[in-house]
Amino acid sequence: MEFPVLIETLRIALEHNTAHLLRAQLEDVHPADYAAALTEFPTAQLWTLLTVLPRAEQAEVFGYLPAEVQVELAITISRRKLAPIIRQMSADERADLFNRLTAEQRDTLLPALAQAEREDLLRLSAHEEGTAGAIMTSDYAILPPELTVREAIEVLRLEAPDKETIYSSYVVDQARQLIGVVSLRELILAPANMRVEALMNHDPIYAAVDLPQEEVAALIAKYDLLALPIVNAERQMVGIVTHDDAMDVAAAEATEDFHKTATIGKLESSVKQASIGLLYRKRVFWLVILVFGNIFSGAGIAYFEETIASYLALLFFLPLLIASSGNAGAQSGTLMVRALATGDVKLKDWGWLLGKECGVAALLGLTMSAAVVGLGLWRGGPDIAVVVAITMMLVVLVGSLIGLSLPFLLSRLKLDPATASGPLITSIADVAGVVLYFSIATWYLGL
Amino acid sequence: MEFPVLIETLRIALEHNTAHLLRAQLEDVHPADYAAALTEFPTAQLWTLLTVLPRAEQAEVFGYLPAEVQVELAITISRRKLAPIIRQMSADERADLFNRLTAEQRDTLLPALAQAEREDLLRLSAHEEGTAGAIMTSDYAILPPELTVREAIEVLRLEAPDKETIYSSYVVDQARQLIGVVSLRELILAPANMRVEALMNHDPIYAAVDLPQEEVAALIAKYDLLALPIVNAERQMVGIVTHDDAMDVAAAEATEDFHKTATIGKLESSVKQASIGLLYRKRVFWLVILVFGNIFSGAGIAYFEETIASYLALLFFLPLLIASSGNAGAQSGTLMVRALATGDVKLKDWGWLLGKECGVAALLGLTMSAAVVGLGLWRGGPDIAVVVAITMMLVVLVGSLIGLSLPFLLSRLKLDPATASGPLITSIADVAGVVLYFSIATWYLGL
Repeated sequence: MEFPVLIETLRIALEHNTAHLLRAQLEDVHPADYAAALTEFPTAQLWTLLTVLPRAEQAEVFGYLPAEVQVELAITISRRKLAPIIRQMSADERADLFNRLTAEQRDTLLPALAQAEREDLLRLSAHEEGTAGAIMTSDYAILPPELTVREAIEVLRLEAPDKETIYSSYVVDQARQLIGVVSLRELILAPANMRVEALMNHDPIYAAVDLPQEEVAALIAKYDLLALPIVNAERQMVGIVTHDDAMDVAAAEATEDFHKTATIGKLESSVKQASIGLLYRKRVFWLVILVFGNIFSGAGIAYFEETIASYLALLFFLPLLIASSGNAGAQSGTLMVRALATGDVKLKDWGWLLGKECGVAALLGLTMSAAVVGLGLWRGGPDIAVVVAITMMLVVLVGSLIGLSLPFLLSRLKLDPATASGPLITSIADVAGVVLYFSIATWYLGL
Repeated sequence: MEFPVLIETLRIALEHNTAHLLRAQLEDVHPADYAAALTEFPTAQLWTLLTVLPRAEQAEVFGYLPAEVQVELAITISRRKLAPIIRQMSADERADLFNRLTAEQRDTLLPALAQAEREDLLRLSAHEEGTAGAIMTSDYAILPPELTVREAIEVLRLEAPDKETIYSSYVVDQARQLIGVVSLRELILAPANMRVEALMNHDPIYAAVDLPQEEVAALIAKYDLLALPIVNAERQMVGIVTHDDAMDVAAAEATEDFHKTATIGKLESSVKQASIGLLYRKRVFWLVILVFGNIFSGAGIAYFEETIASYLALLFFLPLLIASSGNAGAQSGTLMVRALATGDVKLKDWGWLLGKECGVAALLGLTMSAAVVGLGLWRGGPDIAVVVAITMMLVVLVGSLIGLSLPFLLSRLKLDPATASGPLITSIADVAGVVLYFSIATWYLGL
């Protein structure tokens, strides 16, 4: 059903009090679309339209609702009505919702859950944010190694409704340690009497529960996995992270790095939803820091006041020289920040990449010198043209090398290389640009 | 097996001529790891180690080899030896390899394939780069609607070895039009005599073959799909794009946008592999363009030469004022570029986001003014302090509004909003900064 048609259908059903008749019409609507359509309605109507669905689908649609709407419903709808949905939600989505509630709201909700669900919820929500534990789910399929393929498929058939995926099953020993993985595809192709133990892969890819979530996503991408098993320090299976969550994590990490390249702090909410106060707080820190960085450029200019007073024409070239230095630095810095984030480049590659960058930057510098030498002749005469050309060559080189090296330096200091943002590199390159320019001018013009 | 252990094992086997005995040891090594280990060896040894594996796995490992290595093998290994691997490769990986070969190399390889494979290959590789067609595979499972669940599972069991996935099956009518989708999970849970038609989802999510690949990836992420069916203009099924390819596309698109934020052109290869010449070509264009953009800032300074000559102290504040304008602009620009790319923000949101940005920028401007007023008093006295404070307030506001608006403007003109890079915004904001600063100074200082 097309999205506007869906919303209109829902609106009409509400008006005519026929929401209870919707079920058959909605059967093939994707839960993500239904959730998106629901957000067009106020909370009370949203709740009416949500509860029209069969119970299992209610939980699925609820999981696709924006976090704020989930919290809004968790607060306004009575615990008795909401509990069945919360119970049906996938374990990781339930833990996410739980983490967004206040302590008081949590205490209201918890008694609505069965003991086992409560313990699972508390266990899942206890993991540190940003780790595998915080994004994993406990709804995974486990098989004992001694089952036959026929028995294993029967187990999966029975458990399927409660599991996030049955396409990958995890084989654990009696100590719940992960000893293998087997796919439903392999099970379906194998002889019915074969043992799971003989069929499974004995060396599965897995991750520790405290691994940063971006590395979890990278493992899933590298090995093209449907799900990655997560183990604790004893190699006991504690959860899985699925491919769709990995994709969300990768997108969120990319957004965070994007924002960092422009000195914006980590935004938990979307830009659209963020308040003026929140955006202000995420942006002001580096803007102010960089002002003080730029004082050095100002001091550089002040130091060469005499040179400038004698040759005011030099000022004409100041913006383009320091901007070129900063722009070249932003280029090489951004290349390295992204390459370090994707794993294309490692810390140990710095040396030879610096060598390569010298080559690239020298070519860029020569081109840029050629581009400005005519301008120098026209606006300042032959002497200033020489000064501008030499300076351009040097500032592009210096800016590029600073830009290339800063992400490695930050990484070496165990800081996030993405902090080597364009504005930070530009500020550093600016100082170098000012000092180089006026030093060369003072020397060449014999002042 | 740990990665260094794996490489050492392979090295020893080569030395002792026991590579043919490796097979049992390698059974549980992931093909991605085996491929990565192979790249440590020269082509001839690589080929020996590759052909130790069973045929089906050879093709899988070959698919994980870097594109350059695949091409190298395709050129150096005889057609007769290589053909069995090429035949076993998944259709989309085969088409990718084919697209990397020269016309002559293609002509050598094509006769090694059967007629059907040849036609499939030519069809797949004909799609325009960057579209759904260019990343889809033709190895998908199809079911006729009239089959029973039992029959359907039997069909999938038989076809599984040749299909990219059997977890999603596509139901097509006699004209090959897509009429439904059914998951293996649903098939396994359903009664054996139920018809596929009754079980399937009649309103599947699908994409057109010419949809840009980033939108394909976005659909897969939004609906948490394992695979997305791709249809032609007649709604006939022509391929699927799988979740792992979607993840690769999303990462590649993010990298491309990252590079654009720093005015770097689209790099086909990794930064590590890119030659000096290639990096130079991808970086020089915008660097030179921006030089000419900065001439306006230079001209602005030249225009106000008298003001500057009278108050040389003004120059001290020039870098920090224009940098702050550019930095604030880079922040709001980057926020919008990313939000437009992820779909968080749409073109129609510009108006009210501009309103919100006025609020954020005013707060930022006030803070920045407060941060520099003391510096103004100290370095320039009360008059210059007032000029600097007023200018700071205004340039942060103007820079932010330029940064916010430029991505929308580019998007409106059907250009990629990511072209609104930090350096471009900075260059524009610089001009505004220079003119505002010296205009206010000229006016306030009564020159």
